[in-house]
Amino acid sequence: MKEKLTLIKVGGKIVEEEATLNQLLSDFSAIEGYKVLVHGGGRSATKLAAQLGIESKMVNGRRITDAETLKVVTMVYGGLVNKNIVAGLQAKGVNAMGLTGADMNVIRSIKRPVKDVDYGFVGDVQKVNAELLSNLIRQGVVPVMAPLTHDGQGSMLNTNADTIAGETAKALAEFFDVTLVFCFEKKGVLSDENDDDSVIPVITPEEFKMYVEKGIIQGGMIPKLENSFSAIDAGVSQVIITQASSINGEGGTIIRK
Amino acid sequence: MKEKLTLIKVGGKIVEEEATLNQLLSDFSAIEGYKVLVHGGGRSATKLAAQLGIESKMVNGRRITDAETLKVVTMVYGGLVNKNIVAGLQAKGVNAMGLTGADMNVIRSIKRPVKDVDYGFVGDVQKVNAELLSNLIRQGVVPVMAPLTHDGQGSMLNTNADTIAGETAKALAEFFDVTLVFCFEKKGVLSDENDDDSVIPVITPEEFKMYVEKGIIQGGMIPKLENSFSAIDAGVSQVIITQASSINGEGGTIIRK
Repeated sequence: MKEKLTLIKVGGKIVEEEATLNQLLSDFSAIEGYKVLVHGGGRSATKLAAQLGIESKMVNGRRITDAETLKVVTMVYGGLVNKNIVAGLQAKGVNAMGLTGADMNVIRSIKRPVKDVDYGFVGDVQKVNAELLSNLIRQGVVPVMAPLTHDGQGSMLNTNADTIAGETAKALAEFFDVTLVFCFEKKGVLSDENDDDSVIPVITPEEFKMYVEKGIIQGGMIPKLENSFSAIDAGVSQVIITQASSINGEGGTIIRK
Repeated sequence: MKEKLTLIKVGGKIVEEEATLNQLLSDFSAIEGYKVLVHGGGRSATKLAAQLGIESKMVNGRRITDAETLKVVTMVYGGLVNKNIVAGLQAKGVNAMGLTGADMNVIRSIKRPVKDVDYGFVGDVQKVNAELLSNLIRQGVVPVMAPLTHDGQGSMLNTNADTIAGETAKALAEFFDVTLVFCFEKKGVLSDENDDDSVIPVITPEEFKMYVEKGIIQGGMIPKLENSFSAIDAGVSQVIITQASSINGEGGTIIRK
């Protein structure tokens, strides 16, 4: 039987504010067994870009990444946010190690082909090299992954943190019994968007289909859940959608077969 | 018998300009056996600080690192410069991994006590954890180390790259036959400062004493050589002082017992 591994993805908002970051670091430290943290950092990137006179252009929620913006996100995601988390976890006795996709060639991407939109230096994940990563994890190292990959030809690429989390979880599923936790602002997937306590505790593929048909699950939640089922189809044991403050407790929505 | 490991330290100037960086990456890639790269990045830090309206204050060649400057060096050293090198080495087939002292707790420092000067968030190295590092190296990973450490209490610290190189070389000497290479702007230690070709090929402790007495070696070269002998006393096999363009060839000054 494979050993358990928990992979937590948190957005920029949580890791960029001191109070929520400290809470997250405490909660993450308390998770037993093997674990991985994937973080965002978009707000800090937008802030630094503005300070440097670089305009942040977003299309469909994704950042258009020109050469100057690539420098900004490499500094903010790979440097500032990542090392702040790593140093914070080390202070709590967690042997964290910061990684981008370039480090140990953990995640190689391809620069997104230009179709309707030229996203610039944005990477679509091609391959996660899970073997070195899993060796490190078994040595007691806790990877802290920034939303950056590389193209194998010398360039870093900006890559969505949800994608990093999903693809890494799938690749690690060969070696571990993986639970993938997506933290977002709500307590879970809600059956009534106006009632924050109407969390649906479990969603199976059949239930998902039914909720979508009834219009209970709609909008941006549909691709999020499709991604979750795709991770499960690729070997991830379960996906949990919850709040960052609940990563160590009950609650949230469990996505499973 | 221990296996050979080469640890190269290059300053900011080399890694911050595209032409010299590309040459360095090629030369470094060609080094056989186990290897580690330690880099600076001061010029880029000064440039970013200026763009952000932060004044760079230097005392005795060291950067005064207030809270805002710490963010700048964490972004530049740990993000921009480090990941640029890592992605560049990966493109050449070197399985590089970027590290600060916080990552895997590789180098823990203590914030420099305030005496005549308050250097701010600057770290004096306390301990290099060479065991995890040497495990990684034996797995074929090539560490690329930024001049940053941490205090074990959640804060990153700015740390001189020569110090990182020297202390890491000493710690790795327990596991490997270590050659430490300091790259600087001259071809080696010169017997005539006005003749760039007057490189002294070998310096032993006795010869060092003699050269200092005769005034042939003076100024900033004295602490550099004292540090080199200190590394050798701590188990490093040899120290070479040379140009970045010569790391793979003959030339330079060899410091040995």
